[in-house]
Amino acid sequence: MSPELAAALAADAERVERALEVLLPERPGEEASLFAAMRYATLGGGKRIRPFLALESARLFDIAESCSLRVAAAIEMAHCYSLAHDDLPAMDDDDLRRGKPSLHRAFDEATAILAGDALLTRAFEVIVDPPTHGDPGVRAALALELARALGAEGMVGGQMIDLATEGRVDLDIGTITRLQRLKTGALILFACEAGATMAHAGQHLREALRGYAQDLGLAFQMADDLLDVESSVAETGKAVGKDAARGKATFVSLLGAERARAQARLLAAQAAEHLAPFGARADRLRAIARWVVERRA
Amino acid sequence: MSPELAAALAADAERVERALEVLLPERPGEEASLFAAMRYATLGGGKRIRPFLALESARLFDIAESCSLRVAAAIEMAHCYSLAHDDLPAMDDDDLRRGKPSLHRAFDEATAILAGDALLTRAFEVIVDPPTHGDPGVRAALALELARALGAEGMVGGQMIDLATEGRVDLDIGTITRLQRLKTGALILFACEAGATMAHAGQHLREALRGYAQDLGLAFQMADDLLDVESSVAETGKAVGKDAARGKATFVSLLGAERARAQARLLAAQAAEHLAPFGARADRLRAIARWVVERRA
Repeated sequence: MSPELAAALAADAERVERALEVLLPERPGEEASLFAAMRYATLGGGKRIRPFLALESARLFDIAESCSLRVAAAIEMAHCYSLAHDDLPAMDDDDLRRGKPSLHRAFDEATAILAGDALLTRAFEVIVDPPTHGDPGVRAALALELARALGAEGMVGGQMIDLATEGRVDLDIGTITRLQRLKTGALILFACEAGATMAHAGQHLREALRGYAQDLGLAFQMADDLLDVESSVAETGKAVGKDAARGKATFVSLLGAERARAQARLLAAQAAEHLAPFGARADRLRAIARWVVERRA
Repeated sequence: MSPELAAALAADAERVERALEVLLPERPGEEASLFAAMRYATLGGGKRIRPFLALESARLFDIAESCSLRVAAAIEMAHCYSLAHDDLPAMDDDDLRRGKPSLHRAFDEATAILAGDALLTRAFEVIVDPPTHGDPGVRAALALELARALGAEGMVGGQMIDLATEGRVDLDIGTITRLQRLKTGALILFACEAGATMAHAGQHLREALRGYAQDLGLAFQMADDLLDVESSVAETGKAVGKDAARGKATFVSLLGAERARAQARLLAAQAAEHLAPFGARADRLRAIARWVVERRA
């Protein structure tokens, strides 16, 4: 990663962290552990790539950071809710997340389910709250797009396909692509498009961001599959080698590592090209696309 | 229940059922079981009291039924998501719901978690979608109020208190009241207030509905606690005697059955009085308050 991109990513991660700190306060009382679990699942970790995409998307349109930071924080809450539920024993049964015990290991299963539910709900609450945007039509549009990205025809649907096809080695590239477009692609798409929605942007600029997001999302997933094969727990802070152990068909098992890597690089380059209408303002989005396929964690 | 109220409740339950049928379609593909589980958890059962309250609240202000029915359906989705998650083995571990196997028994735990997540998300999606109201400010306000009712400072917080205090017989009436205001009261409040929000009603009428909802919510819960002690599985379609078996402090264990019944009736009468500003238009809301404390299921 270039020093410029690293510095930009770190600065935004810090801003997102501070926003999340404020939006997810501690609370006393019998339900204190719920609030503690919401904070545990969200604060102090992660690369914050999705919030970064949302912030950069908003910067293309000069959206005030006081607004875009709330959208970015809501996206991270939604992402962390999905990790908490996916890690549960009944789902992927993962003990490790972001280098520490996963939520249900640090608390318990009931608290992990409830904290996930509460984070998802809080994401919508933050999005539709007036401080997020002066135009209620924009807030309602953001919430609608977020719901579509997260629901049965988005992220949850993707996770269902993932569970339902576990152990099936006969999956074709079309099914895997569709699975990933839903499971990880939909929320990335929402993050990349958020600036356009906040700015009432026209169809042309919106389509440019959508094209970028769709290619980036697939490149991101292919890189993730490569990391699961080639990386270590120490590097990623989560379990590795899981896909093969579960007999899961992935881009890597289907294409082989070399073709998957070449394909990921091609998609990343293609993602960057979609951003032409934004000129040099989109350079950081181009840089993150390059980095996504070269990262080691 | 009077024949008039029974007919009104049945007619609205039928309308809500048809709306839910349309809003929760079946889907083919690898994720078909997710959509089937969402339908299983929501369709074909339940008294639909919360949707009824929302529809009646909207009628006070002559809101078009095409709008209020969507809000009512979203409320039922949110209610059914909470039942699906509360029934999970890690939570209340209930095998029976609405006279049939609970969601995780009919499908599996992973599907039950995901279907609950997807129903919650779909509730927000339906609320903020343009067909629900022509004014995006109303849609954003409804979503904000729904999120507050459902989140860590609402329903999920109440469920956390419930789990955290299980087995503690020393709970006082203040803690139980707070628990119930969050766990069941907040969504009932949202349902009762929804008409006022859709109609841009003034503070006076909104406060009347809030007062009604708060008294009704507590009366409803006291009646539920009484049913758990005095009713049968055949009557309620869910497990009974659970509270005592779990050593759970309830209104009944704290006050005794007779005082709890008297208190519930008092609250129901008080609830009805809040509706004075609406005159005879609110007669069905008054009738449901009376019925709630006399019901046998």
